[in-house]
Amino acid sequence: MAARKAPHLMTLADLSSTQIHRVIAHSFHLKRISLPWLAPQTRLENGKMSNQRLRMPSQSLFNKTVALLFSKRSTRTRLAAETAASLLGGRALFLGKDDIQIGVNESVRDSARVIGGMCEGIFARVGDHSEIEELARYSPVPVLNALSSLWHPTQVLADLLTLTENAYLFDSSLRSRANKDAYSTKHKQLDELRPLTIAYVGDCANVLNDMLVMYPRLGHKVRVGAPENPKYRPPKAVWDRVVELGCDKGIFMTADPREAVHGADVVITDTWISMGQEAEKEQRLKDFEGYQVTEKLCKEGGANADWKFMHCLPRKQEEVDDEVFYGPRSLVFEESDNRKWTIMAVFDLLFGKWDLVGRKQEAKA
Amino acid sequence: MAARKAPHLMTLADLSSTQIHRVIAHSFHLKRISLPWLAPQTRLENGKMSNQRLRMPSQSLFNKTVALLFSKRSTRTRLAAETAASLLGGRALFLGKDDIQIGVNESVRDSARVIGGMCEGIFARVGDHSEIEELARYSPVPVLNALSSLWHPTQVLADLLTLTENAYLFDSSLRSRANKDAYSTKHKQLDELRPLTIAYVGDCANVLNDMLVMYPRLGHKVRVGAPENPKYRPPKAVWDRVVELGCDKGIFMTADPREAVHGADVVITDTWISMGQEAEKEQRLKDFEGYQVTEKLCKEGGANADWKFMHCLPRKQEEVDDEVFYGPRSLVFEESDNRKWTIMAVFDLLFGKWDLVGRKQEAKA
Amino acid sequence: MAARKAPHLMTLADLSSTQIHRVIAHSFHLKRISLPWLAPQTRLENGKMSNQRLRMPSQSLFNKTVALLFSKRSTRTRLAAETAASLLGGRALFLGKDDIQIGVNESVRDSARVIGGMCEGIFARVGDHSEIEELARYSPVPVLNALSSLWHPTQVLADLLTLTENAYLFDSSLRSRANKDAYSTKHKQLDELRPLTIAYVGDCANVLNDMLVMYPRLGHKVRVGAPENPKYRPPKAVWDRVVELGCDKGIFMTADPREAVHGADVVITDTWISMGQEAEKEQRLKDFEGYQVTEKLCKEGGANADWKFMHCLPRKQEEVDDEVFYGPRSLVFEESDNRKWTIMAVFDLLFGKWDLVGRKQEAKA
Repeated sequence: MAARKAPHLMTLADLSSTQIHRVIAHSFHLKRISLPWLAPQTRLENGKMSNQRLRMPSQSLFNKTVALLFSKRSTRTRLAAETAASLLGGRALFLGKDDIQIGVNESVRDSARVIGGMCEGIFARVGDHSEIEELARYSPVPVLNALSSLWHPTQVLADLLTLTENAYLFDSSLRSRANKDAYSTKHKQLDELRPLTIAYVGDCANVLNDMLVMYPRLGHKVRVGAPENPKYRPPKAVWDRVVELGCDKGIFMTADPREAVHGADVVITDTWISMGQEAEKEQRLKDFEGYQVTEKLCKEGGANADWKFMHCLPRKQEEVDDEVFYGPRSLVFEESDNRKWTIMAVFDLLFGKWDLVGRKQEAKA
Repeated sequence: MAARKAPHLMTLADLSSTQIHRVIAHSFHLKRISLPWLAPQTRLENGKMSNQRLRMPSQSLFNKTVALLFSKRSTRTRLAAETAASLLGGRALFLGKDDIQIGVNESVRDSARVIGGMCEGIFARVGDHSEIEELARYSPVPVLNALSSLWHPTQVLADLLTLTENAYLFDSSLRSRANKDAYSTKHKQLDELRPLTIAYVGDCANVLNDMLVMYPRLGHKVRVGAPENPKYRPPKAVWDRVVELGCDKGIFMTADPREAVHGADVVITDTWISMGQEAEKEQRLKDFEGYQVTEKLCKEGGANADWKFMHCLPRKQEEVDDEVFYGPRSLVFEESDNRKWTIMAVFDLLFGKWDLVGRKQEAKA
Repeated sequence: MAARKAPHLMTLADLSSTQIHRVIAHSFHLKRISLPWLAPQTRLENGKMSNQRLRMPSQSLFNKTVALLFSKRSTRTRLAAETAASLLGGRALFLGKDDIQIGVNESVRDSARVIGGMCEGIFARVGDHSEIEELARYSPVPVLNALSSLWHPTQVLADLLTLTENAYLFDSSLRSRANKDAYSTKHKQLDELRPLTIAYVGDCANVLNDMLVMYPRLGHKVRVGAPENPKYRPPKAVWDRVVELGCDKGIFMTADPREAVHGADVVITDTWISMGQEAEKEQRLKDFEGYQVTEKLCKEGGANADWKFMHCLPRKQEEVDDEVFYGPRSLVFEESDNRKWTIMAVFDLLFGKWDLVGRKQEAKA
């Protein structure tokens, strides 16, 4: 067997729309198989334990370890990764900024080679996007982007799974979801999602960037409301990928949040004051005045009557009020739960099986 | 299956005495089954490995993850939890104060829901007790108190297991324990513990509080020696539970440590200078003068001739001298080892099986 | 079964040369069995998964936990230990300086006993070597030195495995290695290593110390180039062990790096500026002028034409240039990968089976 170059995933722009659909279907499959394992164990009438005959999810990480290189703290991404790796039979090994400082005591090149010689995958949350690109260049094992200055692919996969699972909310012709109980396996297959209008209101950061390179290719429209200041708009490196993929035709940008939510089936926002941005908090509060997602804003803007709300969390009051966030429109906690299942699918395909080669890498091979 | 509300355990006051006995018996059972696994592996004469035919302990955490939310450092509780989760087939995921700060970057409500969507149990060591109550309010999965300002239930369960395993030390009519070798399985069942007089000498903190709501209900007497200053005595929130359970009738309080150990079968103390209390060290040294547990103190006070000593550790010189701490009266290291087995039992029943519903929760259901 | 005293491993001076050969052979065996598990999982033509029929490595750590007590950060040693423990069916529990401070909040004696009551092995990276000696004195379970001020046994075992796997590079009579592909199992057995001349150029620290007590006993010569200042030379505690083992006859020391590499088959160095030594950086740069390992140095000194290079990493530019470090002479990344397999072997024998008793301990028993 000739040594193969490891596949990497930096952004959803690396995947074809077929590959994206495959990841979503696989996430749903793994979720259906795994949830019954997570229910409280009981003794059945025949004396067996309730989980004794359950089907095991893919064990492609059995005996394997995935390194989590996280230069910043993370709750959702880390918990999703650690629990997903366990379900796949493997282990996630968390290395925070106090455990390892990539590029400080050793070159990125050496660290990538050393870690890749010990672990079977690297899930990295870095600062500047160039850091993860350099890791991928030298790593002998697959590298998956857990969050960078430019992209956040696993978040947007979780969003898409959440919308697809809730397809009936946007399409009255679909039977309602059979059963939303957490441990149910009755909901046997995903419905098809009708073309949606998805509004993003707020600071154009990594989450939006991956939305921009994905949703238009799947037939959805993206409407973005963000202040005109270029620092709140997608950087050139992102927009180049958007145009390259022909996604720009499905995107509408405006500085008026009302105009952004016009006709929206889904309204999404993110915090304006991320970790490390506390210094400019006052300026940001001013720049984003009127951007808080509320019933009023969406009514005035003309969102669809049954619009739904998503947020990648953690959430702050400024960007969305309690009525929306904790109300019946909110899909935020399903979205958070789905971080686990989409990360599990990508771990299985990318780290466990090397079976998710990006478009460009495929073309080169 | 209708969604069930998750059971939580905040203090031993939440459990009936029957439930407490059940946890102790289950701890002993799990210990007996698990210890042979922990012995050095050898090849037997028939060529098999020594652990090849061993019975597996409950695997109710298989494929599951327990989040350890520890806002303070911990050695015993953490090691016990991590190793116990492994033996139950699952994983403990440690999140210290540098990993997550509950309530800082996100509301406690949101964190409880998110973590409970990823993990199957939460074992939390918080500061103020209200924090863990709030976690429990919003968590979809069971929450277990690993230590709070008011309570320390898993410590006192370990104490009770230790005393019960050593019942023969307090009762000459019982056969002596067959074999105290660590990996032995000969000691097949627990003896019954005769009614004891248990003296606690020192600062009335969380460990004592759980003693107060448990021992009297099991037929044991508690004698407390603590300075009269209210800050060294149980707070009202604790005493209310004591009275509610009728435990006050089995408790005697005094400011004289000699009087406290009168007739004691067991003498227990804890450090006076916990983490975070270094500032008042000098004042505390003065207030607790004469409280050091020594042979002399117990002789002068009139403890039973064969009194035993326990301490939840870490230990400092001030509260007990070397002669007692490292001497034949000391059960401290058995007590420490038992942290693992009692935590394992509660993890199994609470997180794995949802089969340890507190008295109040049961009444409501 | 009478309680047995746990075996410990502080330095390779504790092992006989027969035991060292056994550890190397066992490392190679475990590596051969484990590597196929780490390959990407694929579905075979018969429908089975590619890892379905693989032989499992030793599961002597099944249900067990190894405590990693690391007072200093570590990448290689930690990753090797965590992944090795997983492959042996067990778990490594990392406790860094923010998790536990041995000797600060509790005596070393108490911590050793408590941790040894919860875990089945202790792999400790301490500051002063006396700390790990004290841990071993009181621990009921085996203690393995992960790095101390004096010794670094697991590093030198990885070096020896690397040299042995590459025996054909030093001996044209051996068939060339069949296949160097990472997941190959074709390389079925280790060749015998001819007597080598091994040069160490730089600061005489823990890695060199374990070289000095091992290589001469296996028939290899060690040539050391280090400044004459005693702080760059082996301390008395080390030299006493060297002499005791009769190793001094196989060691040549000089302050001239050229003279050190004369006739060398292998040239080894280490960083001169370790963690915590940043303060004396300037002085060290001066003292080690001319010590950088380069093609030029080795040519001038008269190293063998096909000399190879090793380094325990992390590497800094000062001690070796890019041409050597990334060139065809360099075995550094194989050496790094072998940290995992040698640590796995020692974990299996020492923690899993208590089957690696040191010479002195054996004599006493």
